[in-house]
Amino acid sequence: MAGKRRKIGLPKRKKKVSRVQGKLGSAPGTVNYLGTKEKSDSVVYVTNYDADEVDTKKVESLEDILKYRKEAKTSWINVIGITDEQFIEELGKGFVLNNLILEDAVNTDQRPKIDEYEGYIFGVFKMLYLNENDEIVPEHMAMVLMENTVLVFQEVKEDVFDGVRNRIAAKSGRIRTRGADYLFFALLDAIIDNYFLVLEQINHRIELLEEEVYANPKPIVAQHIQQLKKEVLKIRRWIFPVKELVSRLIDSESPLIKHDTKLFLRDALDHSLEINESLQIYREMSMSLMEMYMSNMSNKMNEVMKVLTIMASIFIPLTFIAGIYGMNFEHMPELHYEYGYYVVWAVMILLFIGMLIYFKRKNWL
Amino acid sequence: MAGKRRKIGLPKRKKKVSRVQGKLGSAPGTVNYLGTKEKSDSVVYVTNYDADEVDTKKVESLEDILKYRKEAKTSWINVIGITDEQFIEELGKGFVLNNLILEDAVNTDQRPKIDEYEGYIFGVFKMLYLNENDEIVPEHMAMVLMENTVLVFQEVKEDVFDGVRNRIAAKSGRIRTRGADYLFFALLDAIIDNYFLVLEQINHRIELLEEEVYANPKPIVAQHIQQLKKEVLKIRRWIFPVKELVSRLIDSESPLIKHDTKLFLRDALDHSLEINESLQIYREMSMSLMEMYMSNMSNKMNEVMKVLTIMASIFIPLTFIAGIYGMNFEHMPELHYEYGYYVVWAVMILLFIGMLIYFKRKNWL
Amino acid sequence: MAGKRRKIGLPKRKKKVSRVQGKLGSAPGTVNYLGTKEKSDSVVYVTNYDADEVDTKKVESLEDILKYRKEAKTSWINVIGITDEQFIEELGKGFVLNNLILEDAVNTDQRPKIDEYEGYIFGVFKMLYLNENDEIVPEHMAMVLMENTVLVFQEVKEDVFDGVRNRIAAKSGRIRTRGADYLFFALLDAIIDNYFLVLEQINHRIELLEEEVYANPKPIVAQHIQQLKKEVLKIRRWIFPVKELVSRLIDSESPLIKHDTKLFLRDALDHSLEINESLQIYREMSMSLMEMYMSNMSNKMNEVMKVLTIMASIFIPLTFIAGIYGMNFEHMPELHYEYGYYVVWAVMILLFIGMLIYFKRKNWL
Amino acid sequence: MAGKRRKIGLPKRKKKVSRVQGKLGSAPGTVNYLGTKEKSDSVVYVTNYDADEVDTKKVESLEDILKYRKEAKTSWINVIGITDEQFIEELGKGFVLNNLILEDAVNTDQRPKIDEYEGYIFGVFKMLYLNENDEIVPEHMAMVLMENTVLVFQEVKEDVFDGVRNRIAAKSGRIRTRGADYLFFALLDAIIDNYFLVLEQINHRIELLEEEVYANPKPIVAQHIQQLKKEVLKIRRWIFPVKELVSRLIDSESPLIKHDTKLFLRDALDHSLEINESLQIYREMSMSLMEMYMSNMSNKMNEVMKVLTIMASIFIPLTFIAGIYGMNFEHMPELHYEYGYYVVWAVMILLFIGMLIYFKRKNWL
Amino acid sequence: MAGKRRKIGLPKRKKKVSRVQGKLGSAPGTVNYLGTKEKSDSVVYVTNYDADEVDTKKVESLEDILKYRKEAKTSWINVIGITDEQFIEELGKGFVLNNLILEDAVNTDQRPKIDEYEGYIFGVFKMLYLNENDEIVPEHMAMVLMENTVLVFQEVKEDVFDGVRNRIAAKSGRIRTRGADYLFFALLDAIIDNYFLVLEQINHRIELLEEEVYANPKPIVAQHIQQLKKEVLKIRRWIFPVKELVSRLIDSESPLIKHDTKLFLRDALDHSLEINESLQIYREMSMSLMEMYMSNMSNKMNEVMKVLTIMASIFIPLTFIAGIYGMNFEHMPELHYEYGYYVVWAVMILLFIGMLIYFKRKNWL
Repeated sequence: MAGKRRKIGLPKRKKKVSRVQGKLGSAPGTVNYLGTKEKSDSVVYVTNYDADEVDTKKVESLEDILKYRKEAKTSWINVIGITDEQFIEELGKGFVLNNLILEDAVNTDQRPKIDEYEGYIFGVFKMLYLNENDEIVPEHMAMVLMENTVLVFQEVKEDVFDGVRNRIAAKSGRIRTRGADYLFFALLDAIIDNYFLVLEQINHRIELLEEEVYANPKPIVAQHIQQLKKEVLKIRRWIFPVKELVSRLIDSESPLIKHDTKLFLRDALDHSLEINESLQIYREMSMSLMEMYMSNMSNKMNEVMKVLTIMASIFIPLTFIAGIYGMNFEHMPELHYEYGYYVVWAVMILLFIGMLIYFKRKNWL
Repeated sequence: MAGKRRKIGLPKRKKKVSRVQGKLGSAPGTVNYLGTKEKSDSVVYVTNYDADEVDTKKVESLEDILKYRKEAKTSWINVIGITDEQFIEELGKGFVLNNLILEDAVNTDQRPKIDEYEGYIFGVFKMLYLNENDEIVPEHMAMVLMENTVLVFQEVKEDVFDGVRNRIAAKSGRIRTRGADYLFFALLDAIIDNYFLVLEQINHRIELLEEEVYANPKPIVAQHIQQLKKEVLKIRRWIFPVKELVSRLIDSESPLIKHDTKLFLRDALDHSLEINESLQIYREMSMSLMEMYMSNMSNKMNEVMKVLTIMASIFIPLTFIAGIYGMNFEHMPELHYEYGYYVVWAVMILLFIGMLIYFKRKNWL
Repeated sequence: MAGKRRKIGLPKRKKKVSRVQGKLGSAPGTVNYLGTKEKSDSVVYVTNYDADEVDTKKVESLEDILKYRKEAKTSWINVIGITDEQFIEELGKGFVLNNLILEDAVNTDQRPKIDEYEGYIFGVFKMLYLNENDEIVPEHMAMVLMENTVLVFQEVKEDVFDGVRNRIAAKSGRIRTRGADYLFFALLDAIIDNYFLVLEQINHRIELLEEEVYANPKPIVAQHIQQLKKEVLKIRRWIFPVKELVSRLIDSESPLIKHDTKLFLRDALDHSLEINESLQIYREMSMSLMEMYMSNMSNKMNEVMKVLTIMASIFIPLTFIAGIYGMNFEHMPELHYEYGYYVVWAVMILLFIGMLIYFKRKNWL
Repeated sequence: MAGKRRKIGLPKRKKKVSRVQGKLGSAPGTVNYLGTKEKSDSVVYVTNYDADEVDTKKVESLEDILKYRKEAKTSWINVIGITDEQFIEELGKGFVLNNLILEDAVNTDQRPKIDEYEGYIFGVFKMLYLNENDEIVPEHMAMVLMENTVLVFQEVKEDVFDGVRNRIAAKSGRIRTRGADYLFFALLDAIIDNYFLVLEQINHRIELLEEEVYANPKPIVAQHIQQLKKEVLKIRRWIFPVKELVSRLIDSESPLIKHDTKLFLRDALDHSLEINESLQIYREMSMSLMEMYMSNMSNKMNEVMKVLTIMASIFIPLTFIAGIYGMNFEHMPELHYEYGYYVVWAVMILLFIGMLIYFKRKNWL
Repeated sequence: MAGKRRKIGLPKRKKKVSRVQGKLGSAPGTVNYLGTKEKSDSVVYVTNYDADEVDTKKVESLEDILKYRKEAKTSWINVIGITDEQFIEELGKGFVLNNLILEDAVNTDQRPKIDEYEGYIFGVFKMLYLNENDEIVPEHMAMVLMENTVLVFQEVKEDVFDGVRNRIAAKSGRIRTRGADYLFFALLDAIIDNYFLVLEQINHRIELLEEEVYANPKPIVAQHIQQLKKEVLKIRRWIFPVKELVSRLIDSESPLIKHDTKLFLRDALDHSLEINESLQIYREMSMSLMEMYMSNMSNKMNEVMKVLTIMASIFIPLTFIAGIYGMNFEHMPELHYEYGYYVVWAVMILLFIGMLIYFKRKNWL
């Protein structure tokens, strides 16, 4: 599955233009999936839990969802697949959500955001994870925090929430005794934690490129560096706003977020800060890489030129001397000296050695 | 028509100087068209609508406009063509508008702005759209939000408002049931949505240039990159302030903007943020392009130098040897050896092979 | 006259040092002309006007100025020439001005500033205009806004206020019915409007340099680009603070500035913003110019190297072959072949053509 | 010991990935040592002191710690070794600390932070010091300021607190008469003071590299410069936040920090400011170094090219002349002139001298 | 004297390390001279003045100072030499000053600061002045403003206060009638005024380097540019904070600074702003210098390459032709043509001229 997903990189022009154009002129609040996945039905899992019980069900219809959601427990309603715009809209009506947030929930181009509404808090984030080829895969996701319930929309089945699921499954986990706001935090925290993995992948690629730059500065390396810079730019766009958003959650006065949970959010804020700092450092490191590449190129050129200069400087004068005694003048006394030829050889060898010493002194050899 | 319009690019000096000079010394508040369109009469369309009815009329005179505007309905008064300064001034008097805003309405150099006055809100924006050659065309426009009425000034007939017109025409559209402030928002939203199209065009050109840079780094490519950078600078100037302006609208305490509409403006703010981020990314990408171009140039130079160095390093010593035995000394014993010639050939071939191995080892071949 | 004035450019060291040294150790508030004009008497023009009458007089002495200034009218007292420190000091006493502002009024190195005092507002600005050679000429000026009176100090007779004078002369002008604060604004507006002209001149020079860079990247062009960058730095220093100052005037609570005038100041603020944006853009464009210059240099070098490499790569091997058969060995069978010579020619021509094809393929021809 | 510790530099990929992955999915507040030290028991020293007495004990168990801590005195509880997660967790329970801070206390990746809790203040910092090879060694440390007690966690036995220990041992020291908040400050101050030592080490390396760049700009030097830049980036990440944290301590309203101690914190703030400025300067200096390296490379290339050009320009024409008279035409009158040979020599020498003068004039010799 | 003083430049490592190490571990508030001057007794001058009288005395002991300081007059107590830590400490006790400020007063590494204490205001600044070789000499100084008294610590006898002394000596000076706060301002103003001189010196050096860069871009010039950049970095560190400090003084609510004096401080603030702007401009100018240097290097390389290419391209083909007819084939009909030799010459000359035209067209000659 993952192999088919959108890779990070510049989207193909054709698709994109039609996508934006498809949206042009439509009223705001129109629920319109803009991603690249094929249309398919959404799959919904509802997990109800409290300190005593956990129970996960795959449900089919809106009515089932509403019915199955139990007031006394914390419900995690996980909607997988957001291409079925009609279903999403129905769901929105069922939970009395503003159409504008449904639009954002399925708009895969939406930048990360958090909006507070009367009775619920809405957030959009990008999950980033590595696929089997260690490529960075972005996945659009949206979360709605309501009284006792967290509603999660994700683009595909893969996600970064297995840790949260395990902690819910474990009877002793703190998550079991805390409410929906803690679940909301836990999911957000899982997303942020995965950013660390992605950053490490970037760090690893920087290190590999660095080795390449030192060992073998070919044009393809420069191309890879530029590619990396572009990816960092792209990822930064998704990751960078998170810090601001978490900090806004902490300052929020919404009754949906309890004071205790804010302590944990402060921790998440800390992690976002760290991630942003790392991104900044990777940015500077990739700029240094390019600089280093250029300096190595320049150095290689110097070396090439030195070889040329040494060869030419040594042999051109010698060839000239040989040329002199290749002339056909009638009157060239040297030609008739018995040791003329040997003297010329001697001169040439002396010149050769002199040149070598000269270049040695210049540190060119 | 569109073909005649101003293209993005540095304006010709002559026109510009006279334009600014034409304004120098005139009192502030003087209504003075500064654009490049030829003088012509303004054309005015008035659209009245409410939940039940829609009705559009082309009107001729100020009296008609004022008469036709119906109090109970929402009126969209669309003034096309702003070269007729006298008419604009009359219109301003008819709607009791400050002269300073009329000056800005026809001043095509005016940067985007929003000013609140007693009883109306005035905004200046740049519409950007692509003409048939996929060139980016900027068009100056101004909007006044009044009680029940939105007054729009645009430079030419082309605009980006067809989507809004369609939604007004459709009976079921939300826009029909909401007031002038929603119309104001819808127009602004249409303008911002078109920025996405323009950005995609820029993105597309960056991609094309990137391919060129890798495939064929000629000086013309560098020139195109610089051209692109200049366009991004230009466009940024028009797009960048919009975020700030929308955010000011949201914070405004004017009774003209209802609370509901502010939710939608928050959406528009989101889009402006995204556009500004993209602009920033395109800026960095075009700088990377230039960097890449330079590195490719440098690489090509390296290659040229290598060819020269290899050819010269191999053949100059060989020529020297040939030169030696071309000398005409009487006493050159080698010349008389029976296999002298073949020995020399052998030495030369060995030298040649040695050189090849040397360059191979240096990774130059 | 203008020809003698100070050009923009680095001041000569000698003059400057003595100037600063001349000031070192003197008490603050010492009125001390620091410019480069020769000492001469100040000339004073007083213009009194209200809605009904305008009247301009050249006056000689402080008493005349004070006498001629009419309470009921708006007075514009224009002091031309600020080298006569004694007169300036007397004037200051006559109008009860703080010595510190007189010091600034004649200090041509003073950066733009606005200071509010009890009963008057003091401002220092740089007028910038083009002389007959289209060079940018800076001129120091200072203004004091008092009750009913604007006192203006300018370095020389030339200024940018002719538009204001004309509007005062015209009976119908709005300026006639408004007070001293509007006059203050009008003068400031005239100064700012002229900045546009200067920016256009810079824009024009950037365009010319751009053409040069593409057509003929000689070192002198690089020097001109650096010159331009330095001028932009210089001008920015004078223009950049104006935005901040105007904005401070708008926020001022001084009773000297009426609410109506603030609407106009908001307009001036807008213009300052635009000017600062343009300056920023010109700065980036001049940096791009230098980048382009470097890339063109690099490209020319590539071309030179290609010519050398092609010539050398083709002829050095051929010369080697000729060298072979110029050897004087006794036993060289080829020399005796009947068609030896022609065979060698054939080989050479084949090599030549092969080389051409090789370089053609490499896209070097 | 120190030799085994982690050096500054990019961590090895393998370890890091597994480390982050190890944390992925675990609940926040999980106490999890992430560093590279081997598991070992923590060693705890408790120092109790007041104006009259000092007394240091190595204690084994949590009970001993709690028992030994005397209410009336200031206690410094120094925990050395943070790999024993179970012990740390017990300790936390003993002192009623939030689990989140224990997590940070042992998380060696945690960026510097200060968090205020009800009843205690928690801080994480990086000690930086030089080992015997003058390499910069970072060490994670955490401090908790409680009523009368400072609890310190450090990774290994080495630290930068000997000065503080000495001042506590000395009867006359001010530290003896002040409370736990002053101890907290003194430890923080010791950490900051050591940053100066580290910065000097960096400064020293910049100077050495500078000399290398001027004397011998080899690729390895560029590599060292880039290495240095990376280290400065790394260190900045640890040092930079300190200023902000100290300033937050000064503004804190916690009763744990007395007013007197804030005067001293102001001093520490001053030092952090200075350190940040120095870091900024070193950053700019290392960028200048790279620039200088590139310019020296370029210069060396120029020199190489000059040698080549001079040699080739002088000898190629001379060789051509020799070639002319090496031709075997039957009718070459010059060959039969008696002094032909000498004339050719004369011409050649003149050419040679002419060339030398030409290059001398061009300043190439 | 001045010749022995510390020059601006990177301090020698050895001294510095031991200096910092010497401080490591000592308690904050320890009065510890860190500069490079040799130990010597401090010399103290006390100047008492009011509108009627001035009186300066050299005093020996703390008692004399306290006795001689007259309540009714303004006292300027000038301590020259800060190596005698014991005396400074006594002095501090005599004036009831906090030890922390004494530490800063003698700490020559202290960055500029202003701290308000109960009853006095403390400031640290760097005097900068030119010595006889026009080198920039920094001198540490500290000032304490108390009721009626200004206490000044300076490192050596040289200072920038002669102007202030003269104005105190002159009976008519404003300084005589104003209190200690005006004296404090006057001294600060004198320091700031001297920064202008130093900036001019830097400006002068930039101009000289600029000429060098255009006339003769040798590596030593690049080295000088980098040197300059480093000096600007250094000086900026001392000068830059002053603006902030003066502005804090203006906002201070301390009763020690009268409202009148704040007007003058506003003037000083203005000057600091100007100085900071100049520093910024010099920074950018020195970066442009380096850019220009690189472009000139590149240009020189181009020229060298052109000479080589022209010489090689012209003579290598000609030499080839000569080589052809130097071959010894038995059957070479051309050799026997009567005018063969002349025809070859003609061909060669035509080729030569053709080449010249080609290079002329390429604009390489």
